[in-house]
Amino acid sequence: MIAEILCVGTELLLGDIVNTNAQYLSKRLAEIGVSVYHQTVVGDNEERVKEAYDLAFSRADIVINTGGLGPTKDDLTKEMACAYFNKKLVLHEDILENLEKCFEKMNKPMPPNNKKQAYFPEGGIMIPNHNGTAPGCIINENNKIVVLLPGPPTEMKPMFEETVVPYLSKFSDGVLHSKVLRIMGIGESGAEEKIKDIIESQKNPTIAPYAKSGEMIFRITSKGKDLEEAKKLIEPMESELRKRFGEDIYGEGEETSIEEVVAKLLLEKHLTIATAESCTGGMVAARLINYPGISEVFMDGAVTYSNEAKMNRLGVKKETLDNYGAVSPQVAEEMALGIAKTSNTNVGISTTGIAGPGGGSEEKPVGLVYIAVAINGKVINKKLNINGTREYIRIRATLCLLDALRRELLHLS
Amino acid sequence: MIAEILCVGTELLLGDIVNTNAQYLSKRLAEIGVSVYHQTVVGDNEERVKEAYDLAFSRADIVINTGGLGPTKDDLTKEMACAYFNKKLVLHEDILENLEKCFEKMNKPMPPNNKKQAYFPEGGIMIPNHNGTAPGCIINENNKIVVLLPGPPTEMKPMFEETVVPYLSKFSDGVLHSKVLRIMGIGESGAEEKIKDIIESQKNPTIAPYAKSGEMIFRITSKGKDLEEAKKLIEPMESELRKRFGEDIYGEGEETSIEEVVAKLLLEKHLTIATAESCTGGMVAARLINYPGISEVFMDGAVTYSNEAKMNRLGVKKETLDNYGAVSPQVAEEMALGIAKTSNTNVGISTTGIAGPGGGSEEKPVGLVYIAVAINGKVINKKLNINGTREYIRIRATLCLLDALRRELLHLS
Repeated sequence: MIAEILCVGTELLLGDIVNTNAQYLSKRLAEIGVSVYHQTVVGDNEERVKEAYDLAFSRADIVINTGGLGPTKDDLTKEMACAYFNKKLVLHEDILENLEKCFEKMNKPMPPNNKKQAYFPEGGIMIPNHNGTAPGCIINENNKIVVLLPGPPTEMKPMFEETVVPYLSKFSDGVLHSKVLRIMGIGESGAEEKIKDIIESQKNPTIAPYAKSGEMIFRITSKGKDLEEAKKLIEPMESELRKRFGEDIYGEGEETSIEEVVAKLLLEKHLTIATAESCTGGMVAARLINYPGISEVFMDGAVTYSNEAKMNRLGVKKETLDNYGAVSPQVAEEMALGIAKTSNTNVGISTTGIAGPGGGSEEKPVGLVYIAVAINGKVINKKLNINGTREYIRIRATLCLLDALRRELLHLS
Repeated sequence: MIAEILCVGTELLLGDIVNTNAQYLSKRLAEIGVSVYHQTVVGDNEERVKEAYDLAFSRADIVINTGGLGPTKDDLTKEMACAYFNKKLVLHEDILENLEKCFEKMNKPMPPNNKKQAYFPEGGIMIPNHNGTAPGCIINENNKIVVLLPGPPTEMKPMFEETVVPYLSKFSDGVLHSKVLRIMGIGESGAEEKIKDIIESQKNPTIAPYAKSGEMIFRITSKGKDLEEAKKLIEPMESELRKRFGEDIYGEGEETSIEEVVAKLLLEKHLTIATAESCTGGMVAARLINYPGISEVFMDGAVTYSNEAKMNRLGVKKETLDNYGAVSPQVAEEMALGIAKTSNTNVGISTTGIAGPGGGSEEKPVGLVYIAVAINGKVINKKLNINGTREYIRIRATLCLLDALRRELLHLS
């Protein structure tokens, strides 16, 4: 079963946006055993979209088509797919109703051209869209399948997962299964060195390591006659990796994040938390609050950017600031203890550092960050030296702090 | 002059990496006046690379080809380009010498298969590579041009800039120039409705609207005989758009962000700021602190997720919470006033809302967010209804708040 990815959008051809959809779809299709030999991008141009369909179906069974489902005249993939399959577009009252509700909720009148989105290919299978106005569509005509998805990844991804993956899985021979292990606290080359022997002798399952903004990811992929067999094949490789990496493995799964792991540990151990941030400036709190259930344990966060705020909000001592400077292990520890105390929480965590580009010195260069974790009055700190842009330094410090907290929580008796 | 971008690499088809090369090249080609109508990705497969050349030259004058210049058997674009143009690959002693030097520098013996990289198409123009082992190549045969570049962006980009851009500029007729205007507070279809007449009659300059995580972007692009003419052509279109959108236009330029615009306004007006966040949980502070100079005016931020924190940190009244609930215009206003007061700043801004997925009710559904802006004791609030995931609701609320602050700062006498 061969699929071709066809992304439609002049903004892609002008380089205004990066085509992350092609990457996401390719990866997921490989995982469910569908081969992809071509990715194609064309603009919002009737002639070229039509040609792209002709070409794609000359060499593939499925065309996964993103973009061009919007309300404007430029959006034309639905029309082109219908033309290719000789189908009519029919007004769906329920889509229209849903569109109107969406706009009602936003307290805005629906612009007339949005009505275009309520027209749907005759005989198509609807792909519900919970994050936008336009539904997607699957058309299967004599085993030529076109899948129409919207361009914005926040809409496209859940629609692909919810409706398209189950639909396509029916057509796949043999089953691929993947498991992702997520690792923190060890660099890319260090991690690869540690599994060199495995990589060199791999067959089924295979292992693919890759680095991703401050963490390492190992994807183990196996192929079996059914899901059960594929899952079984992964087990020995997984336990070997767990033996080698121990608690550097912080979690598993595609979407698992360090904040989710930490949030679950806090909830499980009934520990409340508050954050005190200087250089990360709210990123640590924002990450933790990504996790929907966090409100049970997350009480309070402070972005104490100025020295005054560190003293007033957290009770950091003036002497400590004067003697050691704001970027010091002492201040990091007082911040963590101070936020826990003033917020009356079990856990307090903190960051203080120099994110740059200015503000560095020989003694305290850009990228120097101290983090601290206080749990029930006991505090530890850690020094980080991070190379990179202001944004990278802040993100990396955020991840390191969450990882340090995770390790402390694991060891808590 | 039409170019096609052809990226070769099985890792792209498996979705292991995102094709940022296609985006970069598209953008740069547009800027130097070369049109791109197709981007194609194929794997490291002889047959499919060959077909891709045939197809690309049937519809374009230039093929920009990335990937497949490495030392392994899989790397075959040079071979395929030579086959297409009926050219021989010849061993270049100077490339070989350079390769050997590279490995010497790394203190490694040169693996025998790297010698493959020293073979170069007869009659090709060399593209030096200062960041890797394989040089690139331009072949121009009867005005069909193929440009061979390596896959890694760190090698590809400087090679493209240094050698390919000057080479291609010779063939371009006239100069393209773009200007980007950035808009907030108006949806995609609403914005397009407002410029429908312009889009329908556009010629030179053209205007391309697109939506990007909560904002709208208009790219005006003109073509002139030189840069000066191209810039002049943009002026009347820009002033027409500014007339129609007024202060919905928050900034201009490729990289400008709402936080940068707000930070500059605060610095210019010498106003200090503090943030009080509930549902956005640190995102507003984190955004503002993205701006490197912000420490002069950003004093303090509070992530008051619990009611206790709202009362303790910000002085929100218990009666207000009891009477109206945490998600209410009254609480938003007390939060904004409270953070400004307790942090002793001119400006206080706040968010309180229901980010979901749980916690919604009929009266207060998921996506309901109140934001408030207090400046020197005067406060306004705004109600938002946002459709989407937890993350989207939080990001959107953050942007709306920064935009509301921007508008208040503009009107400040």
